[in-house]
Amino acid sequence: MSVEAHRRFSKAAARPSRRAIGVGVVGLGTVGASTVRVLLEHQREIDRRLGCKLELKAVCSRRVERLDLSWLHRRIRNVKITPDWRDVVRHPEVDIVVELVGNLESAHAIASAALQSGKHVVTANKQLVAEYGLELVEQSQHAGTGLGIEACVAGGTPVLHAIREGLAGEHFTSVLGILNGTTNYILTEMEERGCTFAEALAEAQQRGYAEPDPTADVEGHDARYKIAILAMLCFGAAVPVAEVAAEGIRAIDQVDFAYAHRLNHTIRLIAAAERAAGGRLRVSVRPMMIPCAAQLASVRGATNGVLLVGNKGGNTMITGRGAGGEPTAVAVLSDVIEIARDVLSGAAGATPLGYTAWHAAKLAPLGQQVAAFYLRLVVCDRPGILARVSGILARHRINIDSVLQEPAQSKAALPFVLTLEPSRQEHVAAAIREIARLKFLAQPPLLMPFFEQS
Amino acid sequence: MSVEAHRRFSKAAARPSRRAIGVGVVGLGTVGASTVRVLLEHQREIDRRLGCKLELKAVCSRRVERLDLSWLHRRIRNVKITPDWRDVVRHPEVDIVVELVGNLESAHAIASAALQSGKHVVTANKQLVAEYGLELVEQSQHAGTGLGIEACVAGGTPVLHAIREGLAGEHFTSVLGILNGTTNYILTEMEERGCTFAEALAEAQQRGYAEPDPTADVEGHDARYKIAILAMLCFGAAVPVAEVAAEGIRAIDQVDFAYAHRLNHTIRLIAAAERAAGGRLRVSVRPMMIPCAAQLASVRGATNGVLLVGNKGGNTMITGRGAGGEPTAVAVLSDVIEIARDVLSGAAGATPLGYTAWHAAKLAPLGQQVAAFYLRLVVCDRPGILARVSGILARHRINIDSVLQEPAQSKAALPFVLTLEPSRQEHVAAAIREIARLKFLAQPPLLMPFFEQS
Repeated sequence: MSVEAHRRFSKAAARPSRRAIGVGVVGLGTVGASTVRVLLEHQREIDRRLGCKLELKAVCSRRVERLDLSWLHRRIRNVKITPDWRDVVRHPEVDIVVELVGNLESAHAIASAALQSGKHVVTANKQLVAEYGLELVEQSQHAGTGLGIEACVAGGTPVLHAIREGLAGEHFTSVLGILNGTTNYILTEMEERGCTFAEALAEAQQRGYAEPDPTADVEGHDARYKIAILAMLCFGAAVPVAEVAAEGIRAIDQVDFAYAHRLNHTIRLIAAAERAAGGRLRVSVRPMMIPCAAQLASVRGATNGVLLVGNKGGNTMITGRGAGGEPTAVAVLSDVIEIARDVLSGAAGATPLGYTAWHAAKLAPLGQQVAAFYLRLVVCDRPGILARVSGILARHRINIDSVLQEPAQSKAALPFVLTLEPSRQEHVAAAIREIARLKFLAQPPLLMPFFEQS
Repeated sequence: MSVEAHRRFSKAAARPSRRAIGVGVVGLGTVGASTVRVLLEHQREIDRRLGCKLELKAVCSRRVERLDLSWLHRRIRNVKITPDWRDVVRHPEVDIVVELVGNLESAHAIASAALQSGKHVVTANKQLVAEYGLELVEQSQHAGTGLGIEACVAGGTPVLHAIREGLAGEHFTSVLGILNGTTNYILTEMEERGCTFAEALAEAQQRGYAEPDPTADVEGHDARYKIAILAMLCFGAAVPVAEVAAEGIRAIDQVDFAYAHRLNHTIRLIAAAERAAGGRLRVSVRPMMIPCAAQLASVRGATNGVLLVGNKGGNTMITGRGAGGEPTAVAVLSDVIEIARDVLSGAAGATPLGYTAWHAAKLAPLGQQVAAFYLRLVVCDRPGILARVSGILARHRINIDSVLQEPAQSKAALPFVLTLEPSRQEHVAAAIREIARLKFLAQPPLLMPFFEQS
């Protein structure tokens, strides 16, 4: 059949029972405004994908009176502009509510109200999904409405769809990710330009990659929400996000990159979830030593990367832009399009996040994990230090693999590094607690596991 | 709501109107047998995703009498085993026909018959989809049945779902891939071990990465089907696959890697499709010089990698295992699961490959492309060679960027390299035709474009 004939045919075959699907956007910050702009800009292509018009019917911003929306008025008429999100949820022509407000409580109220009133919901709020994911799934299934969350993890990369659909036949054993662009930008700046954490943070703030209060990023809280969502979709299990151990990157020093390079490694903040013994999940966010040849090491700057490990398909790695208005808008719109397809075929809300039945995940204690470790100490130089430290490690039955020392800058704060053979983390932690009490320590010890690619 | 309450709820809410969805597999080669094994092994997890049993009802192999299927009998009863694919297509309990026979004509007959009789179809046959894709789409839409093709490109990686769903809101400007594991294995062996093309090919054959007749792989024909499918999904356009220029890797020599490294590049066989002027697509398969820092350079061995470039989300890269029974089986099963979801919600066949209306792609001539080029000549050394070559290039108004010469092994076959400033490919080709006629040439000239990351 010719393309011509096909085009005529498929237009007829796909003729929808409805002329348009209405979209309402709540929140006109960076992501909200980008979503509206990209929707308008890609309108023709989206219509060709759907065989139906996707029409913006309402937008909401609390600051609506202070916003210049002339660009919006120039592009479309008949769009309701309101400071009250209830106007969007109640709008009779809005089928899909796109929730992009940022604040957790508001996002929760909007998403719940929309689902309960039979509207489909797309959200980019990772905290909302990490904390209230199952509740949203339940509301979505109950109302038979769709729920889109692609933008919550790794911005524009299609990783959640990959887990839910493209790799639905896989049995995942672990998922690892560089999920926070701010910290990855800081770490790669420290690595490539040799600057301090404070300098790299200041630059990230100047470039808009880091918030004025960077706590959520640099302490690993942002990545914790994201790994909870990834684990939820990979393992069909609700992860108690508050119980996930999160360690940030504030303690990483330039000298750690010097030692990492001597070991042919680099340092990345890794969010990880894996199956552990007894049906438990081990979930963590912490800086790790990554071999330079590993794919995770090649994720640089504000980029995100996710490594999905399956027991049949092996390693699948997805990298892309993890944040920013336009990449996030692409993820939001992709969810909107998928839900619109389901609306047209009458199938929305069937298995919103890929499972029909969920487990409650029990977390495995990190302490039981066996790994090789990097231990960096900064000491006031004097005789007998190595003897004391190695004595403590020996008492805890931990073998030292190597001792490294870069030329010293100062006798008062002399860094040196021990690499430890694979040991149970709780044994190493016990030893470190003793070492931390030694008087000659000038800084708290820094401990990082080595990542081993499966 | 607690997980317990949710589980009870969601089991009730998602209770399907049917007790099971039946699957029939045609072809029990490497991929077919793996598909059956992985389906049985992941049964519980798949049921949890679907809320419904996915049951193997029939398998077909022409060699059924010579196969040992005791492993299958041990796992399930009541499976029809037949040498005739028609028995699978006609089986009343088979909803989804998985076509894995390899041969194009048979695959076409099976897929068409299945779709026309109202069965859903999953195929891993790239040639079938590249040559008959639109016909299958039409049959699928006409019958309201699903069509799954994820396994056709890059094996176990979820790249086609990413284009169709996870990035449905994107406007793609180009897609580039390392889509053939055999040639990538050969190139990385040549690079890392310094062996010749013939040695690397022999080793690939020994390891089962290359066929006894390696033509389809090393000449780029396999990659040509795959880039045609990627272009189809990215641009909603049917690509005339026979018109796509394909150039293989037989002419690549060890010395090219030496020069590539001096230029801080490597060599990869790149399949590419991009939007060109006048609404045309430029599609090609050819070896290219890739900067070592580019993500495509880090795709090594039999791995596949696809770089999706969008005008809003930027670069998204997906890498994973491109071939092999189990990774391909994961892709096949993921399609089966997605179609089963659609069967349960009554939505199958709506927009099988992501568009409701298709364009016929017009291909842009490669000659109009502007790129920097690598030109390697092997000459019988004598005075005046560089003058002659550079004179010809100058007459065609092509600027030389640099001249490189590694220490010579023999005066009778002396390789040297010119890098050319960005020029129209047709101008360079005209100059090369003249250069190729020069008497002192010991081998035909080798020309490769430099890849520029956007």
